[in-house]
Amino acid sequence: MSLGESIPIVGGTGALGFGLALRFAAAGRPVAIGSRDADRAGEAAAKVRERVPDAQAEGLENAEAATRGPVVFLAVPFRAQSENLTNLKEALSKGQVLVDCTVPLAAAVSGKATRLLGVPQGSAAQQAAEMVPDGVTVVSALHTVSARALGRLEAELDEDVLVAGDSKDAKRRVAELIGLIAGLRPVDAGRLEVARLIEGLTPLLISVNIRHKAHAGVKLTGLPDALWP
Amino acid sequence: MSLGESIPIVGGTGALGFGLALRFAAAGRPVAIGSRDADRAGEAAAKVRERVPDAQAEGLENAEAATRGPVVFLAVPFRAQSENLTNLKEALSKGQVLVDCTVPLAAAVSGKATRLLGVPQGSAAQQAAEMVPDGVTVVSALHTVSARALGRLEAELDEDVLVAGDSKDAKRRVAELIGLIAGLRPVDAGRLEVARLIEGLTPLLISVNIRHKAHAGVKLTGLPDALWP
Repeated sequence: MSLGESIPIVGGTGALGFGLALRFAAAGRPVAIGSRDADRAGEAAAKVRERVPDAQAEGLENAEAATRGPVVFLAVPFRAQSENLTNLKEALSKGQVLVDCTVPLAAAVSGKATRLLGVPQGSAAQQAAEMVPDGVTVVSALHTVSARALGRLEAELDEDVLVAGDSKDAKRRVAELIGLIAGLRPVDAGRLEVARLIEGLTPLLISVNIRHKAHAGVKLTGLPDALWP
Repeated sequence: MSLGESIPIVGGTGALGFGLALRFAAAGRPVAIGSRDADRAGEAAAKVRERVPDAQAEGLENAEAATRGPVVFLAVPFRAQSENLTNLKEALSKGQVLVDCTVPLAAAVSGKATRLLGVPQGSAAQQAAEMVPDGVTVVSALHTVSARALGRLEAELDEDVLVAGDSKDAKRRVAELIGLIAGLRPVDAGRLEVARLIEGLTPLLISVNIRHKAHAGVKLTGLPDALWP
């Protein structure tokens, strides 16, 4: 496989990353599951192939996985985001898009999952934008979809994914991929700095979920039908 | 009218406050519209009576209005929140609930409406909680419903209102009032500190609205039917 053919998922053995890999594979797209440990990545890829007949899924070390396609999903815990981006510096190359899915929950520093950390750059996504090599564009997305629901193919999704970024073209490419997952509607939420507000949705939903014993998602009302023409 | 009979709305001549007054009046509840200027409040009350036959609406100075019922809505711009709370110190009394609807948009200090200010206490609602007299409970709500839609009775609403606060009883009382407005579903979002995340929804929706030329609202998916038993 060469750049352009696969969907790399850094942190693809975690709940969100694995759920994304499964859903993209189910949509017929080859996925490159990354992990710190290539063996664990390989096991996750095998699990995807087991659940999705004809899936094209390979397991690799994160940096290796990141070279496998033009739009790289970063689905690691915020605690490990900075370390992962440092490790990806040599792997990422000009023209690639990095989709940051991390959320700076206070749980990253042994605080509550209903609280958001203040990130010096404004948001986890802006921290990512500061750390990626020149020519790599960061898009922020996928903070509110339940990892658990993504990981169960029989679970029907019906929610919105807010997408933020400074490059319209990069946002559109990410939106096209998200649109491959049945039941997810990508919504352009604006510039990358808006990620600060979007990342706050995760602890908010966690707080709602605790109260209602639910797995809430977000849907915006009042939007036109053709969202991403 | 005495305490307990009416719904006071401080800032009831503004777009959000007037919309709330109109909707509560349409639901058959007496409203006390407050304004800095009693005459302007009186004009707004007359407008409510004009649009809602049999409406019980009176217009008063803010501090006077605030004494008219047990659950007081504070619907002023964030720029004026602190000043209003100072003016209400003598008017509010033990046992009352103050519903803070203000949003600390950067627009309050000539910044962008797609940006949220950092409030020292954490959120506008927490600033309100610090300023109200002892025995008055603050609940945070009504940040995402379009004031424009509230103000047009023919506009059908179908969205959620996230409600945060440290008193379950106070939240329930506010939820009951919000539930009077057709098409609004109150959702318990947790403790008052979560207001910080909820207030961020407003600039986020404004950013979405700019991009999509829409008036987006919020709806949470995956919640149980009986939200506020």
